[in-house]
Amino acid sequence: MAFKFQLLKKDPKSMARLGIIQTDHSTIETPVFMPVGTQATVKTLTKEELEAAGAHIILANTYHLWNQPGHKLIERAGGLHKFMNWDRSILTDSGGFQVFSLADFRNIKEEGVYFKHHKSGAPLFLSPEIAIEIQNSLGSDIMMSFDECPPYPSSREYMEKSVERTIRWAKRGQNAHRNADRQALFGIVQGGEYQDIREYCTKELVAMDFPGYSIGGLSVGEPKEIQNKVLSYTTPLIPENKPRYLMGVGSPGAILDGVERGIDMFDCVLPTRIARHGTAITSTGRLLLKNKEFEKDLSPVDHKCTCYTCTYYTRSYIRHLIKAGEILGMRLLSIHNIHFLLQLMADIRQAIKEKRFLEFKEAFYASYGLNESESDF
Amino acid sequence: MAFKFQLLKKDPKSMARLGIIQTDHSTIETPVFMPVGTQATVKTLTKEELEAAGAHIILANTYHLWNQPGHKLIERAGGLHKFMNWDRSILTDSGGFQVFSLADFRNIKEEGVYFKHHKSGAPLFLSPEIAIEIQNSLGSDIMMSFDECPPYPSSREYMEKSVERTIRWAKRGQNAHRNADRQALFGIVQGGEYQDIREYCTKELVAMDFPGYSIGGLSVGEPKEIQNKVLSYTTPLIPENKPRYLMGVGSPGAILDGVERGIDMFDCVLPTRIARHGTAITSTGRLLLKNKEFEKDLSPVDHKCTCYTCTYYTRSYIRHLIKAGEILGMRLLSIHNIHFLLQLMADIRQAIKEKRFLEFKEAFYASYGLNESESDF
Repeated sequence: MAFKFQLLKKDPKSMARLGIIQTDHSTIETPVFMPVGTQATVKTLTKEELEAAGAHIILANTYHLWNQPGHKLIERAGGLHKFMNWDRSILTDSGGFQVFSLADFRNIKEEGVYFKHHKSGAPLFLSPEIAIEIQNSLGSDIMMSFDECPPYPSSREYMEKSVERTIRWAKRGQNAHRNADRQALFGIVQGGEYQDIREYCTKELVAMDFPGYSIGGLSVGEPKEIQNKVLSYTTPLIPENKPRYLMGVGSPGAILDGVERGIDMFDCVLPTRIARHGTAITSTGRLLLKNKEFEKDLSPVDHKCTCYTCTYYTRSYIRHLIKAGEILGMRLLSIHNIHFLLQLMADIRQAIKEKRFLEFKEAFYASYGLNESESDF
Repeated sequence: MAFKFQLLKKDPKSMARLGIIQTDHSTIETPVFMPVGTQATVKTLTKEELEAAGAHIILANTYHLWNQPGHKLIERAGGLHKFMNWDRSILTDSGGFQVFSLADFRNIKEEGVYFKHHKSGAPLFLSPEIAIEIQNSLGSDIMMSFDECPPYPSSREYMEKSVERTIRWAKRGQNAHRNADRQALFGIVQGGEYQDIREYCTKELVAMDFPGYSIGGLSVGEPKEIQNKVLSYTTPLIPENKPRYLMGVGSPGAILDGVERGIDMFDCVLPTRIARHGTAITSTGRLLLKNKEFEKDLSPVDHKCTCYTCTYYTRSYIRHLIKAGEILGMRLLSIHNIHFLLQLMADIRQAIKEKRFLEFKEAFYASYGLNESESDF
């Protein structure tokens, strides 16, 4: 198997860790943030712009690509890397999250989930085997098991039943996987905010010896404290030689909290989504560039940033573009926001290397501010 | 004055010409196509992408920039070049065309035009002096006189009155111009399809000795034959040491027809507008990439093209992006279409240089097809 994770260093004062993931397509230093390319494109950006920002791995969504243009078409085009012109690593989710977050109607059975397409309403069916088959066709470097992602809050009774099924589905997916030599399939730990269920789920999945583990069912509306508590007791249950991926989390604050609790991988649509609505993430907090105060502001988005946008363009110009509905405005802010988060990860790695992660976190908040709401993405 | 036009060569078998325009910001080989950056951005593209496509001059719209973000703001930012991060040449129109094409209501008086904003309905007033003042603030390398662009068809009686006013307005604009040392103000020839009025207007404007002349009032719905006829008798009236600019024309066929009739400069929103709707201009005609036939087509948009899009991406992938509403699809086709037209201009210049322009035109049509409709842009 080409996939390899190496733990390089552990922070003495927290659970933060430094590592390296090796895939057939790239070497990825962890902790890592993965920009999201839902429909085989990180919205508005080219490969070169992602590389310039320092991206070594991106995420694509199985559910969307299965529906449009179809995984078989992508397989015939030579796989997802070739189809979208991205030769570094790709992680795909299982489609499970979209089934539970997008579909209006769903019927969960032991064999899989019957549901309707989120736009057309067409009847669809996804199972552990189909989710794996799609990801095998896409040829992603890291794949996800098909799981149920229960809403927050869910009853203990429901969560117990759901997690049992998620464990059975993980096993079925592992059996269906036909490219284990070149695609690493991760297990997904569910269990909501119930510590004993999380522990049970982790133990069962660890017994199946997946090359990596995702922590799912977080960032679904629960308070930040619960997310952090779940992480604190879950990551220690995962063997330390396996990477840990916190799904769907990507605000600077949540990344720092996750790293502190032993998370190695993050992804989120946040940086590109808020960019398209005119918001920049900066070292001094978020800037809503549509605001009147930036109309005549000839400074860069972030004085401390070295990205293309901050090198050549002013807040005043970007505000004009966003107000005028111009795509270049969305592009420039997407470039900046992705660069900002990837630079944050590089800074975090440097801090862990120098045994000063918690100090770095303090200093980051002192500049960024602590008032970041987790609910606005 | 920094602006200079040098006529290098005349085609022996047609009115086609080869020349060079020099401004404070760049050297421009003519015949030239100028991509349109209405709101201080050529839609979806960066400076680097425009440069890679071979753009040495772009156009920006006075009307739009006057309204948003305002010419005074741009002047305070150091002028339009600096504001938008474009250090090659910029041509601005006068705002006149938008007053007549966008505004629902207008009241043309000798002093200028009273009209309403095309979106907000706010009352606005433009005069020759104001149009020049705005362009002086923007700091474009080439400016346009404020003119009336009558619709097609207009009566002879109306056209005579309108052209008289346009001539008086041209004079007033010339008098109001405060940066003649670094911004070249062009006169605009109007007169519709009336040969004697075109002749009269040209003669009057030539007497004012503008550094260049635009031919306006074409591409406003008249048949192609009329456009070509007007060009055939108008360009010979313009001194050959002055550049001639055919406003708003940019389909390959119309460009070839214009070059044949002595036009040096073209602009049009066509390449970027149809790109955003999924249409590519290629050496074998237009491709509507949304069409089902391209679903599995793994060839580039145009085999003969060397642009970024054609180097790295397939028709199948671009079709997927366009269907999925992804901005990258619009970007890739905008890059291609601009590159295609600028390469066409380079090929035209090479053909004129080698005294084979008419043969080149024949060969282009043999591949491109003659069925191009002028009405769809």
